[in-house]
Amino acid sequence: MTARPRVVIVGGVAAGMAAASQARRTRPDADVVVIERGTHVSYAACGMPYNLADPARSMEDLVVLDAERARHERGIDVRTRVEALALDPARKILKVRDLATGIERALPYDSLVLATGAAPVRPPLRGIDRAGVFALRELSDGEALKRWLAAEKPRCAVVVGGGYVGLETAEALRARGLAVALLEKFPEVLPGFEPEVAARVHAELERAGVTVATGVEVAAIVPGDEPPAGARLVVQTDRGLFPADTIVIAVGVRPNVSLARGAGIALGPSGAIAVDGACRTSAPDVFAAGDCAEAPHRVLGHNAWVPLGTTANKQGRVAGANAAGGYATFGGIVGTAAFKVFGLEVARTGLGHVEIERDGLDAVAAVSTQSSRGHAYPGGGPITTVLFAERGSGRLLGGQMAGPEGVAKRIDVLATALQAGMDVTEVEALDLSYAPPFAPVYDPVLIAAAAARRALAAAAGARETHATTIKAHPRARHEEALG
Amino acid sequence: MTARPRVVIVGGVAAGMAAASQARRTRPDADVVVIERGTHVSYAACGMPYNLADPARSMEDLVVLDAERARHERGIDVRTRVEALALDPARKILKVRDLATGIERALPYDSLVLATGAAPVRPPLRGIDRAGVFALRELSDGEALKRWLAAEKPRCAVVVGGGYVGLETAEALRARGLAVALLEKFPEVLPGFEPEVAARVHAELERAGVTVATGVEVAAIVPGDEPPAGARLVVQTDRGLFPADTIVIAVGVRPNVSLARGAGIALGPSGAIAVDGACRTSAPDVFAAGDCAEAPHRVLGHNAWVPLGTTANKQGRVAGANAAGGYATFGGIVGTAAFKVFGLEVARTGLGHVEIERDGLDAVAAVSTQSSRGHAYPGGGPITTVLFAERGSGRLLGGQMAGPEGVAKRIDVLATALQAGMDVTEVEALDLSYAPPFAPVYDPVLIAAAAARRALAAAAGARETHATTIKAHPRARHEEALG
Repeated sequence: MTARPRVVIVGGVAAGMAAASQARRTRPDADVVVIERGTHVSYAACGMPYNLADPARSMEDLVVLDAERARHERGIDVRTRVEALALDPARKILKVRDLATGIERALPYDSLVLATGAAPVRPPLRGIDRAGVFALRELSDGEALKRWLAAEKPRCAVVVGGGYVGLETAEALRARGLAVALLEKFPEVLPGFEPEVAARVHAELERAGVTVATGVEVAAIVPGDEPPAGARLVVQTDRGLFPADTIVIAVGVRPNVSLARGAGIALGPSGAIAVDGACRTSAPDVFAAGDCAEAPHRVLGHNAWVPLGTTANKQGRVAGANAAGGYATFGGIVGTAAFKVFGLEVARTGLGHVEIERDGLDAVAAVSTQSSRGHAYPGGGPITTVLFAERGSGRLLGGQMAGPEGVAKRIDVLATALQAGMDVTEVEALDLSYAPPFAPVYDPVLIAAAAARRALAAAAGARETHATTIKAHPRARHEEALG
Repeated sequence: MTARPRVVIVGGVAAGMAAASQARRTRPDADVVVIERGTHVSYAACGMPYNLADPARSMEDLVVLDAERARHERGIDVRTRVEALALDPARKILKVRDLATGIERALPYDSLVLATGAAPVRPPLRGIDRAGVFALRELSDGEALKRWLAAEKPRCAVVVGGGYVGLETAEALRARGLAVALLEKFPEVLPGFEPEVAARVHAELERAGVTVATGVEVAAIVPGDEPPAGARLVVQTDRGLFPADTIVIAVGVRPNVSLARGAGIALGPSGAIAVDGACRTSAPDVFAAGDCAEAPHRVLGHNAWVPLGTTANKQGRVAGANAAGGYATFGGIVGTAAFKVFGLEVARTGLGHVEIERDGLDAVAAVSTQSSRGHAYPGGGPITTVLFAERGSGRLLGGQMAGPEGVAKRIDVLATALQAGMDVTEVEALDLSYAPPFAPVYDPVLIAAAAARRALAAAAGARETHATTIKAHPRARHEEALG
């Protein structure tokens, strides 16, 4: 690396700005340049739905560090509205274009971090470009939707996609007073989650007045009868027409890898950029971090693509440190995620049936229900937990929960147990806190671990001394009444 | 063991009833007898303060399983208002007295479980027996205080003792509309907790209108000027007079070990009954469980006395299984506890400075503060965390937290890490859930682990590549601003 090395970072949101800050800390004399296509850097994208719900707040509240402050306070050369066009790892040159002026130039680097993120999947849908149709990914998307809500005062909305972004958006639009229909292609909302958890979410959506339609194939978006008689737009589906003044498409994201692919950088089986534990790509001195990259998955034992803000921040730090000539490794992920939908907390960690089947693991599932609070303490409610454990070893493989409170941080207990490689009897022996406002004597985590142990015993054909009735239901899960 | 073995259990609250139920499950043909001095069995004692706060609820709501149901549904021979007088382990006879009739008899047993619990410490205080002075341990104590509140309509109360029972009681009495003064002998409330955590509790008490007086030695309880002019009683202290219509003494508990001691059963250094991992005492076929017994402490590596409802339930199960001829071991404790005081959640796990100093461990303390929610998400507030890590190994030794929400289950993350024997860099690498309503991108647990790592580095004299200012304060703790 030269006397004053240049670290170029492509992308200025979570991973990119974390990389830039860490590169600066690691090598205070480095020339740290961030190339960002959009106008904003370093914003809390996950906060957009919640921000959307509150007309009094500006979307810019979500900006953690603006470009100006990044320049002056951290000495990071942030260049917004600049697009990265092509990367030549052999010559160590990044070709960029200033979107305001159209001027293109070649930016030499000593090391480079790809933090290009992910982009919403745009289904090949007739009418998707009509006014009133939005995605919710970049801060500018959120700003556009929020302006539309203020200016056009839509009365009804359709959200296409029942993943967590779709759910959070549905909640935000309900909070703004709109009638909301949620359309999901798969037979249940939250595809990839366990059915017992998804069913609770479905019920909560309906309780909150969202029209939920599952197994729906969207065909086109066409103009509607204008208000006040009708809605501006109509979503045509195989299950009928859904009128909407505004439509949000939230059918998932995919990694932005065109720059990497064009440079001949290896992608993983997931389609995201392959990286090692130091966030190195297949190209020398090119690192990748965040939603564009895979990450080592500690439960699977190989890389996986789980685009999440926490991972982006942590990988960004590692990539930035290493790009600046330091030494850092990423501890890997176990796939922990949480969200809120109306009065329900939902979270998951580790593997679900999708990953278990994909990797051919031999596992049992145990479904349990336990109160979020102590005996006779008012408030709270039931937490539904699904745990997966490996047959034979008894190793915890993953868990999912839904309940009115205390779910996200309980999932973190399971995430910690996963990271430690605990088996379910070790989880059952955990000394977890008990106080009536926060937990029953036997916390839902302990009850779930006990259920998983019994499911393992039943699957092994063993008869326990203290037999408990285990009802196998059609999906070969194990559910039981809890004492 | 004979054809129809008799398992006798002394004490019918948490540990005792758990032991009885498990003995019954383990050996369905056993004669399972529970001897209980009081009128109630199997109640959620920890729920008493919360119940006290609500005049509409009966204390009996806290009964999980009454004696009648235990007899009929579980086949447990529950004998209330019967006192155990003496135990002869050589002859395997328990001498008991029926408190209603005064009749004494000898009860032979094949195995016996001591689940005699703990009793409130009664300070040698003149006037402690006056009407209007209460403790809060057994359900009958709660009932008596609740009746007094309803009948006598006291306007002001003094709580003697600033441990968590005292704090919960102060909150309950405030909820009932009383003016409350809390008197603590030590220089700060929550002796044994770290000062940064205790200071937040102190501030919260004052915010809620509780008069807090620390470093106060109580001398006597004397009659006051009767209402309406004055209060019924006056607490005389070295810091002045505190008038009170009602007084609750909550200066801690000690294990009920007179029966064990009389039988020559070994006590541990704590004064509670010494047990092994199977809950065996030094006497053959005599087991002990719950607040009267020690428990294996996984962080200390030896037994400790930490009387808590969760441990009582779990040890009770183990003792009951083994007493009935089954096989079970107790996984041990790490010392996890949580409570609520007004708008503050407080929790701890593992070792604090008291235990660290007592065992002569070499540790650093790191104090950190991080928000309970994500960037710009409304609500929540700062969580103060103190972590202890072992110098050299970096092993996590313990943690304490106080904050407006999400504390109890975050402590459980640390409890899980303790149980796994993680060092603080492993804790820092945990993949914890992030969603703005529940956590910032870097959860308070991760921030605390990073602070502990830096404190270890500073203590080792190492200079980190990414240096962060660490201010040592008088107690040689490490505190830092968080980015």
